[in-house]
Amino acid sequence: MRRPSPAEVRLARAWLTRVVEPGRGPVFELVSDVGPVEAARRMRAGAAEAAVSSLAAARRREDRAADDLAQAERLGGRLVTPEDPEWPDEALRALQVAYDRERDGGRRGEPVELTPPLALWALGPVRVADVFARSVAVVGSRNATPYGEHVAADLGHGLAARGWTVVSGGAFGIDAAAHRGALAAAGPTVAVLAGGLLSPYPQAHAGLFRRIAADGLLVTELPPDATPQRHRFLVRNRLVAALTAATVVVEAGLRSGALATARQALRMGKRVLGVPGPVTSGESAGVHALLRAEPELTTLVTRPAEVLEEVGAVGELVERRSGPVEPRDGLEPLARQVLDGLPALGVASPDRIAGRCGVPALDVLRALPGLEVLGFVEATPAGWQLTAAARATRPR
Amino acid sequence: MRRPSPAEVRLARAWLTRVVEPGRGPVFELVSDVGPVEAARRMRAGAAEAAVSSLAAARRREDRAADDLAQAERLGGRLVTPEDPEWPDEALRALQVAYDRERDGGRRGEPVELTPPLALWALGPVRVADVFARSVAVVGSRNATPYGEHVAADLGHGLAARGWTVVSGGAFGIDAAAHRGALAAAGPTVAVLAGGLLSPYPQAHAGLFRRIAADGLLVTELPPDATPQRHRFLVRNRLVAALTAATVVVEAGLRSGALATARQALRMGKRVLGVPGPVTSGESAGVHALLRAEPELTTLVTRPAEVLEEVGAVGELVERRSGPVEPRDGLEPLARQVLDGLPALGVASPDRIAGRCGVPALDVLRALPGLEVLGFVEATPAGWQLTAAARATRPR
Repeated sequence: MRRPSPAEVRLARAWLTRVVEPGRGPVFELVSDVGPVEAARRMRAGAAEAAVSSLAAARRREDRAADDLAQAERLGGRLVTPEDPEWPDEALRALQVAYDRERDGGRRGEPVELTPPLALWALGPVRVADVFARSVAVVGSRNATPYGEHVAADLGHGLAARGWTVVSGGAFGIDAAAHRGALAAAGPTVAVLAGGLLSPYPQAHAGLFRRIAADGLLVTELPPDATPQRHRFLVRNRLVAALTAATVVVEAGLRSGALATARQALRMGKRVLGVPGPVTSGESAGVHALLRAEPELTTLVTRPAEVLEEVGAVGELVERRSGPVEPRDGLEPLARQVLDGLPALGVASPDRIAGRCGVPALDVLRALPGLEVLGFVEATPAGWQLTAAARATRPR
Repeated sequence: MRRPSPAEVRLARAWLTRVVEPGRGPVFELVSDVGPVEAARRMRAGAAEAAVSSLAAARRREDRAADDLAQAERLGGRLVTPEDPEWPDEALRALQVAYDRERDGGRRGEPVELTPPLALWALGPVRVADVFARSVAVVGSRNATPYGEHVAADLGHGLAARGWTVVSGGAFGIDAAAHRGALAAAGPTVAVLAGGLLSPYPQAHAGLFRRIAADGLLVTELPPDATPQRHRFLVRNRLVAALTAATVVVEAGLRSGALATARQALRMGKRVLGVPGPVTSGESAGVHALLRAEPELTTLVTRPAEVLEEVGAVGELVERRSGPVEPRDGLEPLARQVLDGLPALGVASPDRIAGRCGVPALDVLRALPGLEVLGFVEATPAGWQLTAAARATRPR
């Protein structure tokens, strides 16, 4: 069998995205085994195994792959495939691992299979692999409260301002607030769509989608003219969770689709973070239930810095640890207060620091590791002390 | 040495409560070693070891024990000592264990020592041991928001209605709201005071304290005319945590005394529960910080039933498991919905139940154990099924 050309591969993958719904394990399996061109050939011919043929039966005689590619190009978009350098291999690794595990563990019965995508239709000036390298999903209720929208926008803004990509679904409520917050910080933001690039859903957000596509990315597994359908939202949600380092749920009722995204993230071993709210709010009830149900796999977060603690931003900072890498003024007020509680020379216990700076000991204990990471303080067997660098820059 | 009479013991303990501040380890130690009468004799004579003498120095020549006992009696109160049958031995066990451990571990330097009380001045119609047998502390900010007061009152009401004693400090804000909620459910509630029984602080709550004393209890380690002082609040807080099965923090700023109570509860190995709130509220910031700082030792709670899950109410129900012990109508709406998702005959997986009742699988997983405890469902290797008793009472 001769090796297919890149153009043949691209056409085959484009064809597959139209003929089968995204997220179908048997098709992914076949493509992995024989490659997209041969997989498409067998499916077209009705020669694939039954599990695959049945998934493609209704549409296997359609061939609009070239048209779809042309239409994407007219829109300014493109098809990104696993063969392309910008394919987000790294970001999708956890999805692949979860897929392998669940296949072996026989969890095929789940409502959504954690199947990797066959290709991604993308629209926007950024490389797909790059934009997801440091990304966080911010998801939540469409029926968000003003509180939830405020917090989502604040998170979106804070994450984008720190160089992280905010990924969401472009829906009403929390999604849109998170995208808008990120745009306000001039950060790239990504909307993962449950339909095609031609008319992203909901149409009321056409302006928002244009802004997202101008600096960030619209991305979907479906061909340009595909319409969003109920089951496609669930399958889309797995991609939101898969492409990001963590999923933050801002508001969610007990039946919210955002909880489905969170559960999918947990199945992939990803961090799930929840923003609390009033216990009297039905739109926070799902977040609270999630935090209660999975206390070991979820974390309560209240602001962007806490989200970044969870996704390894701290790890990055550790590499720059040789001296204070941030001006003292850049610290949170609490951290600055704790820093001021350290003696100019010598060591102090957290309790003593608490006494000196008037911050509760618990908060001192919370603040010290962050200050350590930032190079301001260091732990010694006898207690905590300022680093030499911090002493040098200590205000008099 | 002849054995002291009960009256002598009572007088000695009354004297000790005036002469030394509560919570002082060396004095507790001496009393444990030689008994209250001999301990008082040595202290009066200036013959105790230095660590004890220094604590009693200023007041060791005062002897108002008989007057204090008479005054308590005039107020309708009494002194309860470890020699009395109503002494809350059981409730104080964790405090004693923590005291022993911290003494051995050399943690004497903590701002508040976890020292058991020498005696308790009490006012109210209930036996001290009884009222704390099923009790929960509800604590929080004096500067509570309307949201916090609403939630505290709701918790107080719900706990009292289920037969649990609500314990708090009688302060403005969360404390008072919790007491009032409990009183509204006609449940006993306890205020642990940082001063004496004569004029409980704050005086603006005189009416509230009268209502608490009418059906519940005012309790304090200090003699009747003692005034509340700053350090006495911290020492009082340890008693709130010590006497109860769990401490619920409803609202707390980052420097709130309620966080001190929570930390003391944690030092005693007690459950600490936190009620979340808006992340934009400074009065919830301390609760969120606590839940984040101690994810394994704290639990987010949103309503009374969740508090009771944590304090063993479930254990009690387990004993009554032979059949449905509560009418189906008594179930939470979600639990009822999940129950309706079980097939009349045969077993179903949680996912299948989720599909049948339209509740997310995560919530089904959360609801099933509670339904099991209540005798409605049972787990089998093949899935979940209705119990025989539940089938018999299933609505047609």
